[in-house]
Amino acid sequence: MRTITVELGERSYPIHIGKDILTARELYGSFIDPASKVMIVTNTTVKKLYLANLREALSGFDVSSCVIPDGESFKNLDTLNDIITELLKNRFDRHCCLVALGGGVVGDITGFAAACYQRGVDFVQVPTTLLAQVDSSVGGKTAVNHELGKNMIGAFHQPRGVIADVGVLKSLPAREFSAGMAEVIKYGLIRDAEFFAWLEDNMDAVMAGDAQALETVIERSCRNKAEVVAADEKESGVRATLNLGHTFGHAIETALHYTHWLHGEAVGLGLIMAADLSARLGYLGENDVERIRALVERAGLKAQLPNRLRGANLREFMAVDKKARAGRLTLILLQAVGRAEISSDFDDKLLQQTLDTFAGRKGAA
Amino acid sequence: MRTITVELGERSYPIHIGKDILTARELYGSFIDPASKVMIVTNTTVKKLYLANLREALSGFDVSSCVIPDGESFKNLDTLNDIITELLKNRFDRHCCLVALGGGVVGDITGFAAACYQRGVDFVQVPTTLLAQVDSSVGGKTAVNHELGKNMIGAFHQPRGVIADVGVLKSLPAREFSAGMAEVIKYGLIRDAEFFAWLEDNMDAVMAGDAQALETVIERSCRNKAEVVAADEKESGVRATLNLGHTFGHAIETALHYTHWLHGEAVGLGLIMAADLSARLGYLGENDVERIRALVERAGLKAQLPNRLRGANLREFMAVDKKARAGRLTLILLQAVGRAEISSDFDDKLLQQTLDTFAGRKGAA
Repeated sequence: MRTITVELGERSYPIHIGKDILTARELYGSFIDPASKVMIVTNTTVKKLYLANLREALSGFDVSSCVIPDGESFKNLDTLNDIITELLKNRFDRHCCLVALGGGVVGDITGFAAACYQRGVDFVQVPTTLLAQVDSSVGGKTAVNHELGKNMIGAFHQPRGVIADVGVLKSLPAREFSAGMAEVIKYGLIRDAEFFAWLEDNMDAVMAGDAQALETVIERSCRNKAEVVAADEKESGVRATLNLGHTFGHAIETALHYTHWLHGEAVGLGLIMAADLSARLGYLGENDVERIRALVERAGLKAQLPNRLRGANLREFMAVDKKARAGRLTLILLQAVGRAEISSDFDDKLLQQTLDTFAGRKGAA
Repeated sequence: MRTITVELGERSYPIHIGKDILTARELYGSFIDPASKVMIVTNTTVKKLYLANLREALSGFDVSSCVIPDGESFKNLDTLNDIITELLKNRFDRHCCLVALGGGVVGDITGFAAACYQRGVDFVQVPTTLLAQVDSSVGGKTAVNHELGKNMIGAFHQPRGVIADVGVLKSLPAREFSAGMAEVIKYGLIRDAEFFAWLEDNMDAVMAGDAQALETVIERSCRNKAEVVAADEKESGVRATLNLGHTFGHAIETALHYTHWLHGEAVGLGLIMAADLSARLGYLGENDVERIRALVERAGLKAQLPNRLRGANLREFMAVDKKARAGRLTLILLQAVGRAEISSDFDDKLLQQTLDTFAGRKGAA
């Protein structure tokens, strides 16, 4: 087992990474006050796989559980209200602890429930997807969706600790594993060229599920994210580099009405598109764009838009997002493999060229 | 106009107190970035009185407004969702500012909307009730209610500033004004004996609506609350003294199913009951209990339970609240006028005597 500490002053917390640690009761004991009531929040799918094991590991605590439906469409205020109802019915006071057992949706909504129940209680993350292990478990972002926008209602709320069990990734569908890898590759690209090179050397072991390789993937990703977050907890500056590939990715997701492609799949192609634009701007060499494209593809991700978006103008879907200030689009671009920069001062024509090239539109350079 | 600064490091903010300052545009200019969109949130009652004036004062800003129904029963997630819908429909980004124009309900829900919209945006309080001016505008507590409990879903989120216009108190029903005075008297009792004596000398002017006297009432109350909050922002210790009278008050409100009496009316009687118990415990003299009872009554508040609670055992309604830890009831008691203490180590029989005396139950001492 490896442990990283996310340094946030009095809200610092550990991330434990290892095989079969989901049931390591001593880890929970180090996070949770023995006098606290514990509520496990999970979904209908993960419940069948791991809830009994986790309850067993938590025996000795006063444990309840709350099972929410599986899917992003349930990450809303109604489900939040259901979780709060369970807490109140079971007379949880403010010295309780929620445990999020599941992927990003479970982590986001459970974290937000913990952030606002009685104005803030403890929570622990037990992420069961690669994406949640490398991404959602660091940063303190919690949220639910609104009908008119994703993650529009939320809070910054740090967990007491994270238990990332690489053993559970066996149960993850291959497509979801690949989607998580998009974020992993992103960390190499924005600030860790050595890790990017390590991924080039070890992608086969990673994709084969080698436990040591997976521990490295998660440790290195979390360490990179933790360093960025520690430097910029509330996302005013450098933290924005974590959005590399995401503005392109969101445009793809929006154009697809959030169907057909997973978020991570869209981000994976977004990384290639960001690299392509960076090359057009003269920052990256063509060979670096090719390295990025090759690594994304080896992770089982797509390097091309789906046919249904052939000819579409993705620019229409990039206009407004949370990160847009005063109307001007801000993008994360690459100065090199391992070095990202935030820019709103780029040539719009070159952006249009990148979009048109991937969409196979006429006039594409 | 008088100004207090609530000292909270980088989240410090001013409270401006004066007559007819609701329309003082330069004050808003000092809180709100000129590039920010502004959303005024108010209710159907206050809208008719002050919305047009406030919009006029904010001309020059890009202003929208959102009118919610009047009443505590609408302080819930559904109304919160409606506010978020308005923000998203009007394309508010995270550099916006909400303005809460109304009493405690509007302030609590608007503050919570600001706390969680895109994980936190600015807000300004323009409280239009005495209770909101002396209480809700300091402390950063925001919340909505859940079907199973009041203020169960919320956040700590500080406003950018508060504009407390004593002129608007003219439009407040006398009962609501008196309810606010319960909190005012509380500040004297818990930590400001000089202010308590000032209230004894000036209650007639206060009740007659004298502007100078009202400014003193609000300034002194906010200053006391601000000092307590600055010392204990997240309510772990001394901040609990602000709950003097509230545990008794909540028991009364619960026994009345939150009908018939306003919160402040229940707190007013709660102050007398806390004084009565403090006297039974040997802390306060009988003459101090009488001073407290007399001042509460001069503020237009009741010193007796309503007839419908004659004979009731209020102890049943005191068992569980947010402040209860590990089952033991904690009360705020008075060591003297101007000195409160937090105690869970009192003789339960004396508490029962106090409750029985006020309820006129047999066996009362």
